[in-house]
Amino acid sequence: MDTHKHFMQAAIDSSLKSIENGTGPFGAVIVDKEGKILVEAHNEVTTQNDPTAHAEVNAIRRACKLINNFDLSGCTLYTSCEPCPLCLSACYWAHIEKIYYANTREDAAAIDFDDKEIYEEIKKPIPERKIQMVQYGRENAITVFEKWVNKKDKIQY
Amino acid sequence: MDTHKHFMQAAIDSSLKSIENGTGPFGAVIVDKEGKILVEAHNEVTTQNDPTAHAEVNAIRRACKLINNFDLSGCTLYTSCEPCPLCLSACYWAHIEKIYYANTREDAAAIDFDDKEIYEEIKKPIPERKIQMVQYGRENAITVFEKWVNKKDKIQY
Repeated sequence: MDTHKHFMQAAIDSSLKSIENGTGPFGAVIVDKEGKILVEAHNEVTTQNDPTAHAEVNAIRRACKLINNFDLSGCTLYTSCEPCPLCLSACYWAHIEKIYYANTREDAAAIDFDDKEIYEEIKKPIPERKIQMVQYGRENAITVFEKWVNKKDKIQY
Repeated sequence: MDTHKHFMQAAIDSSLKSIENGTGPFGAVIVDKEGKILVEAHNEVTTQNDPTAHAEVNAIRRACKLINNFDLSGCTLYTSCEPCPLCLSACYWAHIEKIYYANTREDAAAIDFDDKEIYEEIKKPIPERKIQMVQYGRENAITVFEKWVNKKDKIQY
């Protein structure tokens, strides 16, 4: 049995379940370094009223809860669609090692999801983005960063 | 009273509380279109073992729960630091209208957070990224997108 095929089929099956449950057509699976499926998850944006509840984010959050750690180093993500920038960023923060994806951001754009547009927005310089961004109050906020630097018992991530 | 100053100070106060609670120095506030603070939130990555529990993501999740909707159109985000790509993407998905931020991604990099590096990774073509990404299984996954297109009662987001 081709393990990649097995893991990707689990992610695709989850994307189908997502539609049946009334939300977006996306599914994901996280496999640990021993080749065991830790979690399967699907999109829950409209069922949970959570715009961040994408399949990959859900999978990462639940895998972390399961292993009691915020670091998924050595784990592989299988996802039915190329991760959007939210999900790709979550993979970096979680230290996911490798990503297998099936559909592309162009496929997602063709069915009216904003993945491709958000990739283009993030690349832009701040003043050219659709969401207006204004810097304000750094002189106060930077003192908190200084407190962080001087904190003795901090946990880095 | 300068409302921007008030809202930003609430976000900065929340970033200070975050350090006191033992996690990263980041705080955020979401203000609705009437100028009322909906939620204050801070980073909870290491306390919740959730690599996606950034201040802005937490604020967006909780504001959505509060208003029972996945759409925060018309709302403004105040954050003690420029949103990382995870949080900026979450703002796009949630339709946040405007962002005020204090510290920058360079300030975050100077205290060893990966925001700036992830911005650079996301811009790269897929084969040049640190996380290896492999396309696999589109012929099966695309059939689920087709089912989505043909679904009659779907909720778009």
